[in-house]
Amino acid sequence: MKKENLSIAAIRALCIDEIGKAKSGHPGMALGSAPILYTLFTRHLVQDPTHPDWIARDRFVLSAGHASALLYAMLHLSGYPLSLEDLKQFRQLDSKTPGHPEYRHTIGVDATSGPLGQGIAQAVGMALAETSLRHMYADGDEIFSHYTYCLCGDGCLQEGISQEAISFAGHQKLNKLILLYDCNQVTLDGPLSQSFSEDIVKRFLASSWNVIEVKDGNSVTSISRAISRAKKSSLPTLIKINTIIGFGSKNEGTCKVHGSPLSEDDAINAKHRYGYDYPPFTVIDSVYKDFKDTYIKRGKKAYEGWEKRYQQYRFNHKKDASRIESTLKNDVSTYIFDENPYFEVGFKDSTRNLSQTILNIFNKSIFNLVGGSADVAKSVMTAIKDEKNYGPYERGGRNIFFGIREFAMASIQNGMLLHGGVRTYVGCFLVFSDYMKAAIRMASLSKLPAIYLFSHDSIAVGEDGPTHQPIEQLAMLRSIPNCEVYRPCDANELVASWKLALQSLNHPTCLILSRQSLPVLPRTREGAVEKGAYILSKERGKQPHATIIATGSEVSLAYEAQQILWKNGYDTRVVSMPSQERFLKQDNAYIEEVLGVPYKSRIAVEMLSSFGWHRFAPHVMSIDTFGKSAPAKDVIEDFSFTVQELVRRVKEIV
Amino acid sequence: MKKENLSIAAIRALCIDEIGKAKSGHPGMALGSAPILYTLFTRHLVQDPTHPDWIARDRFVLSAGHASALLYAMLHLSGYPLSLEDLKQFRQLDSKTPGHPEYRHTIGVDATSGPLGQGIAQAVGMALAETSLRHMYADGDEIFSHYTYCLCGDGCLQEGISQEAISFAGHQKLNKLILLYDCNQVTLDGPLSQSFSEDIVKRFLASSWNVIEVKDGNSVTSISRAISRAKKSSLPTLIKINTIIGFGSKNEGTCKVHGSPLSEDDAINAKHRYGYDYPPFTVIDSVYKDFKDTYIKRGKKAYEGWEKRYQQYRFNHKKDASRIESTLKNDVSTYIFDENPYFEVGFKDSTRNLSQTILNIFNKSIFNLVGGSADVAKSVMTAIKDEKNYGPYERGGRNIFFGIREFAMASIQNGMLLHGGVRTYVGCFLVFSDYMKAAIRMASLSKLPAIYLFSHDSIAVGEDGPTHQPIEQLAMLRSIPNCEVYRPCDANELVASWKLALQSLNHPTCLILSRQSLPVLPRTREGAVEKGAYILSKERGKQPHATIIATGSEVSLAYEAQQILWKNGYDTRVVSMPSQERFLKQDNAYIEEVLGVPYKSRIAVEMLSSFGWHRFAPHVMSIDTFGKSAPAKDVIEDFSFTVQELVRRVKEIV
Repeated sequence: MKKENLSIAAIRALCIDEIGKAKSGHPGMALGSAPILYTLFTRHLVQDPTHPDWIARDRFVLSAGHASALLYAMLHLSGYPLSLEDLKQFRQLDSKTPGHPEYRHTIGVDATSGPLGQGIAQAVGMALAETSLRHMYADGDEIFSHYTYCLCGDGCLQEGISQEAISFAGHQKLNKLILLYDCNQVTLDGPLSQSFSEDIVKRFLASSWNVIEVKDGNSVTSISRAISRAKKSSLPTLIKINTIIGFGSKNEGTCKVHGSPLSEDDAINAKHRYGYDYPPFTVIDSVYKDFKDTYIKRGKKAYEGWEKRYQQYRFNHKKDASRIESTLKNDVSTYIFDENPYFEVGFKDSTRNLSQTILNIFNKSIFNLVGGSADVAKSVMTAIKDEKNYGPYERGGRNIFFGIREFAMASIQNGMLLHGGVRTYVGCFLVFSDYMKAAIRMASLSKLPAIYLFSHDSIAVGEDGPTHQPIEQLAMLRSIPNCEVYRPCDANELVASWKLALQSLNHPTCLILSRQSLPVLPRTREGAVEKGAYILSKERGKQPHATIIATGSEVSLAYEAQQILWKNGYDTRVVSMPSQERFLKQDNAYIEEVLGVPYKSRIAVEMLSSFGWHRFAPHVMSIDTFGKSAPAKDVIEDFSFTVQELVRRVKEIV
Repeated sequence: MKKENLSIAAIRALCIDEIGKAKSGHPGMALGSAPILYTLFTRHLVQDPTHPDWIARDRFVLSAGHASALLYAMLHLSGYPLSLEDLKQFRQLDSKTPGHPEYRHTIGVDATSGPLGQGIAQAVGMALAETSLRHMYADGDEIFSHYTYCLCGDGCLQEGISQEAISFAGHQKLNKLILLYDCNQVTLDGPLSQSFSEDIVKRFLASSWNVIEVKDGNSVTSISRAISRAKKSSLPTLIKINTIIGFGSKNEGTCKVHGSPLSEDDAINAKHRYGYDYPPFTVIDSVYKDFKDTYIKRGKKAYEGWEKRYQQYRFNHKKDASRIESTLKNDVSTYIFDENPYFEVGFKDSTRNLSQTILNIFNKSIFNLVGGSADVAKSVMTAIKDEKNYGPYERGGRNIFFGIREFAMASIQNGMLLHGGVRTYVGCFLVFSDYMKAAIRMASLSKLPAIYLFSHDSIAVGEDGPTHQPIEQLAMLRSIPNCEVYRPCDANELVASWKLALQSLNHPTCLILSRQSLPVLPRTREGAVEKGAYILSKERGKQPHATIIATGSEVSLAYEAQQILWKNGYDTRVVSMPSQERFLKQDNAYIEEVLGVPYKSRIAVEMLSSFGWHRFAPHVMSIDTFGKSAPAKDVIEDFSFTVQELVRRVKEIV
């Protein structure tokens, strides 16, 4: 048997064994696309398993994450610290081989995947980051050049995010992005033709992609030739590869083999068809040797060459090199304090405007900031004024026009952060975080320090009405594990929030911004934003009658109410709580100290849904219906979000 | 001046005046696409303003909802009850002319729109419903035939949902769907070319659409001819119409005119260019006459013809006619009780399986059910076994294969319900409700009785791991205003939940289903699911030490814990709370009666996020991190979701 066929047989056998032992998994795509990954890994992919974080390694995203068994088999053979024992623990508790690939969990996995379509956008983000880094530093080409590969299936391409992502990639001419499309024409429920009759090739051509077709998905030569051609393209390339789902199984070509293990009989039958009649989890030496002679050798050599180049680079470009090294840790905490903007009481502006001011100040210190918006740069105020716009002929530009593609934007940001070397932010209206939810979850799960600028943060949006007025979006964002949400009440809280967002190493941050002006309040400059909440305005006496907890635009409302309540003989405390998540991370003593009064005497005020607020207070002044179209002032009054109403509510409690 | 040009001038002038008076709105598209809607309304659209709910009227969706001023101008001229006074109240509190069109708020508005892209999918749903109804009843063609039109802009087509929707529509050959594409090449942030270089025509051709191009968006003749051709197509048609954003304004062709009113000067200038030098809100008689002679006359005649046909139909098809009439009210409460499934204590099955059983039973009574899933019919169990699969050559099929297009699926469902005449449901894994969030919100806002079957409802998903295990999704869904979420604990609660979902007239319902088997518990058959929560198992003594509130799979856990706690000398009450929303709608007396103990003595148990539960209990046994990949039993144990742990937690409280 040809060496390559033997290796592919071994890979397929491993997939069958992993899934068989786990009694769970997706053999269909794993068996069908094994030759694709074999070809990619042994003939093209430049990575060094002993330096898995190497910034200039080729990236590989398994967008069809359900083919994880295949990826693990590849990583095992490719010299990553993933043993046969690990493969035997496929889909078992705390193993290195979970059901879908998890970034930061398994060495060699470049991206968490599983939710379909997002892997393509993540790969686009990686390819984008590569172009950006190459132009961020002098002679960046020498240090950052690499390809980005992605393997997707029919499912990924049915998802709308795929079109957003490929449309963006085509527009930006991300020519070092190569999308391998495992076209097996079968989905979970049956033949793809039940739900799909697009001409994928034409769709990609319409989006300015280069397209190559490979008729026989078992032909290493054809696949390899296609990849070679793709690498030379001036456009991103789709390689459409016809495969047979579950190749080798008695159920090959049908949906029966998509997501269920092969029967014991069928496993033996399939291995026999491959000409690989070995007991489970057997990898014969020649297969390991095949990978040693190709993937491992190529990677080692490439890394050594790169390292030499980098030593020279360090010599030639001292400053750039030290910058590059600092960015690889993604840690900006050492240098964002160069300039520390603060604002005096009485100053007044919307937090969306202020966000742009702060962004532009921080950009002077943080040299690797790249960001943009979904066609609302002028509304969400996301532009860095000193920087150019990113484009196919302006790779050094830092302002990215993501287009009206919120979901892909968030997912592309994930890819940029997975890539590393850049710090990023993206922006849109808070209400349209709905479109991005799945990608924000992915950032949280992948522990990525993504930054979201969400403006127009309440019914104060005004005339655009209920479709554009967020109500439940803050609850949605706050409920995501490992995601931090800040709704600063003024310029000073915003400065602190922006800093915390930039200092994050392992979680995304949402900065919630107002459309309307918010006055700077006393004490916010010294306010403990990093603790999530603090006493903004103390009671006068020993024990307040009530505590008013507020966020964002409602903090000044609470502050005003406090003054009136004093005149009426009621003593209250005002707590500003820019971040629930941060506050809940503090110890109980701090939490109790800040809240000051028993549960029953607390009221929370936020001009959005009450959902989630009862954790802090039984009384909530909120809006639990959809908004209304009218000038902001009229809507706010219609929903009784007035000082008078808050005063009334507090009196009621006391 | 030609009559048509005068009318178009009047429409444009009205748009300028509406937006000018409101000092808010989007003149860009309104002015650019006025001739498109003029042509559609006066030459083609078949509607009768005196019968705005006529089931066989042509549908029109303004997907680019920000052009609302134009739609209101059209409705005013077309004889709908929308006066010049209403137009003067554009974007004002409680007016009939809110910032974006709102279904059920303004007569003549067929769909709520604004969030980009969704209008296209809604139009697809309408076109789908039309084909379905034509084949649901004998001679349905006579009663239900009509066209569906949609006007979209560049933004709608950048959104990924547009590709999901057009791909689906092309596959299903929905040839009576006509998409009018206002191609003005400008978006909020500037020229479209900043972010977009797709060949839209090719993309639609790749998705099996018919495409027609109109070079001059001011040519009524060309637009009308294109629509005439489109009506004869055997495929859905895209009519790409080149327009000039803000036509007539000094800023025409630029993004300056996208979303800001024209200056007073510019308003006068533009009207002068149109040859319509009249004071604000002037409509000269000949314009009204133009609409009377065309749109109104055509509609009246068509409706009268239809009414005659329908009288004859009633005579020929008594049973079908009575069925049709009952569906128009969307009220199934009178006939879903034909068969009332119930299950005995001890019976055990997953609620996803049971959901299919129940669906199939109800389908016998509810003759207009149509539904499907996003390629997970076999996992979420969404198929109606007695019905055929829907397809271009099987319009009578009731099982729809939506493909791996969750967002479009949800939005298409919205369109089907906006159309009326059918009852619908769609299904996917709970975790992927993330992809659908924006459409679920739209259903809630539009008061549509959509039904979502969300299965695999906790970490009990098992091996597929954290990307597939919902944590915060229930919080997300529960936080949406006007959306009801049910997480039934067994077969009997599920029957009741399904019924409530089907009986809804004005809100969507999420049915949360388990992958694993759940035993039927005592009392669930009589349980007050419609009240959201009820005492499943009473305390033994007069006053329980604690109340355990649980939902879904955790109710049996609570029930078991109660037995053990009794043995240990602790008296508890178990409350099953399938629906928080329903429960919160009850009066205080009922709420207090069911919960039974003071706030501090309550514990809620749900194998997902605690977010939102503190409204009911200060103690929550929950999971506030992402899940893990492992066999369900192992994950559940790893997260300590055991009877022992619940017992321990309750003892701690007491």
